[in-house]
Amino acid sequence: MHPKEKPDVNKVKFGSVFTDHMFKMNYTVNKGWHDPKIIPYQPVTLDPAAMIFHYGQTVFEGLKAYRTEDDQILLFRPDQNFQRLNRSSERLSIPHVDEEEVLYYLKQLIALEKEWVPKGEGTSLYIRPFIIATENNLSVHPSACYTFMIILSPVAAYYPEGINPVRIYVEENFTRAVKGGTGTAKTAGNYSAAYNAQNEATKQGFSQVLWLDGVEKKYIEEVGSMNVFFKINGEIVTPALNGSILEGITRKSMIELLKSWDMPVVEKRLSMDELLEAYNQGLLEEAFGTGTAAVISPIGELIWRDQKMKINGGETGNVSKRLYDTLTGIQTGKKADSFNWTIQVNSLDETTSN
Amino acid sequence: MHPKEKPDVNKVKFGSVFTDHMFKMNYTVNKGWHDPKIIPYQPVTLDPAAMIFHYGQTVFEGLKAYRTEDDQILLFRPDQNFQRLNRSSERLSIPHVDEEEVLYYLKQLIALEKEWVPKGEGTSLYIRPFIIATENNLSVHPSACYTFMIILSPVAAYYPEGINPVRIYVEENFTRAVKGGTGTAKTAGNYSAAYNAQNEATKQGFSQVLWLDGVEKKYIEEVGSMNVFFKINGEIVTPALNGSILEGITRKSMIELLKSWDMPVVEKRLSMDELLEAYNQGLLEEAFGTGTAAVISPIGELIWRDQKMKINGGETGNVSKRLYDTLTGIQTGKKADSFNWTIQVNSLDETTSN
Repeated sequence: MHPKEKPDVNKVKFGSVFTDHMFKMNYTVNKGWHDPKIIPYQPVTLDPAAMIFHYGQTVFEGLKAYRTEDDQILLFRPDQNFQRLNRSSERLSIPHVDEEEVLYYLKQLIALEKEWVPKGEGTSLYIRPFIIATENNLSVHPSACYTFMIILSPVAAYYPEGINPVRIYVEENFTRAVKGGTGTAKTAGNYSAAYNAQNEATKQGFSQVLWLDGVEKKYIEEVGSMNVFFKINGEIVTPALNGSILEGITRKSMIELLKSWDMPVVEKRLSMDELLEAYNQGLLEEAFGTGTAAVISPIGELIWRDQKMKINGGETGNVSKRLYDTLTGIQTGKKADSFNWTIQVNSLDETTSN
Repeated sequence: MHPKEKPDVNKVKFGSVFTDHMFKMNYTVNKGWHDPKIIPYQPVTLDPAAMIFHYGQTVFEGLKAYRTEDDQILLFRPDQNFQRLNRSSERLSIPHVDEEEVLYYLKQLIALEKEWVPKGEGTSLYIRPFIIATENNLSVHPSACYTFMIILSPVAAYYPEGINPVRIYVEENFTRAVKGGTGTAKTAGNYSAAYNAQNEATKQGFSQVLWLDGVEKKYIEEVGSMNVFFKINGEIVTPALNGSILEGITRKSMIELLKSWDMPVVEKRLSMDELLEAYNQGLLEEAFGTGTAAVISPIGELIWRDQKMKINGGETGNVSKRLYDTLTGIQTGKKADSFNWTIQVNSLDETTSN
């Protein structure tokens, strides 16, 4: 096999170029998960009746490998991703994977594809583990077989010209998720369900939408496909996990960082009314989304009905900046990892934990 | 190509055997939908980064072809299915298909696979049109390319031993859909989202769950993956389309039939409290689900919290029976089709409308 030519990572679009190899493992009721292997990156051949095409039984994860200045390769909290994968699978009636086993294979795959982890500020190798239902059957029931895959994609810096606060509006028509639904799971259907809202936002010149709860349409849940944080009168507030919000690993890490700095951080139910009131009193100091892709995405302007909130003069706030610098610093080995969040990937079969 | 041997349809499980041919057509931004063709039934080869695997952008339909006693092949309201496919596509940001064009190809495909339409009471050829997103890209946005397919599966009688009323309970934890979500669209994610609830129902010896609205958890929406009807004090009641209920074509046909019989039928918001009150007053006379697979599925027993409602003594009611007999009679050519609901499929390229 001839390895592909590695692209200029700063010229590739997110998630459009893939490395030479992938990981694959199958599940059947009789054998459980079996036959794990690293293989050349290759197409998937499925029957048109494969259940993934019809009933959406699928889960995924997203994480990154980073190259340090001294050419070590680091993974950021991959154990958390595989734990969440299993929680998502539970919601979708998909059998659990062995978290340690898939982490072992992920490290082997990254070690093999080491040269694909790009150099350069803000770049990384995006990692996409996912499971699809592969039984060929149109009856509506959990699949009897599945395929787990991991594919890798080198990605450019999210902010090549520095962090840029974005304009957001509060979505009032479409609903992202509701209690008892699949909002807490990282599953395909949640994402395409948001396209209509995103298209409308883009058309109106906004970057994303702010999602409210699906029941009362009063409480803040997420922003685009990120978790959301606010700094109100010195306190950092993020919506509490309520059965429809995705448990972001960046979200969790931000909360842990803030606590380590002795900054007041609370997870609670937060209504748009409260947020607007804080704004009107001059107490809404910062707002930002958090996620694997962007790490931090500051919100410079937030529109709700006929109210326009300009936050921190449309500039990135100090807490946003400090969180961004610290987390990306830890991820890329520039800052000490006092939380033991990163795992170093060494040569094949010699990967060790930091 | 050697045609497959046709199975004994009464021994095959629903949706597990497929015919010799399928229809396929592709979409790209530049060309629109193009290259429609009927090809041998064959696997689909996709890149592991194909968007269908990651963001669930997909819609489908389900309808049937029936063989009449004099060996004509009938389709039941296929125009309605393709109209709904386009409505579903709108919700999922998928480009519309030309309804007349796909109906033309469906008729060609059925004509070619005529021998696969089974003989025998209650049997049919199940038709599954579906569209999947095929761009290879992990960025969260509507796909730039799609594949539309139609596959066919001979299916046994749904009730080989006659209609059997089922036991149902009212789901209180999981939510099927909510206003602003994807509940009105026939899209994959809605179906796997219901597996947890269905698994629990099966474990407890129930056949399905009755879904309530996702906001107040008070109002009746659907039963399993069917629409639901009740006969209360002589009036037929079905939940009004409210932005989270699927617009069933069987549902619509039942309403039209009932109206043609001058039977009182209303679409309205119906709460569990009202239903229980009607039951306690001895006014809940019948309850049944409607859908393409079963046509009518009578509910013999309905459990809500600590209340057990035994409906019509656990037997199939007269209205349920009459609707079932009439609709299946029209579908299979045994009864006069005064609504012009059926379309006759003739030889290749000679299909005509009734």
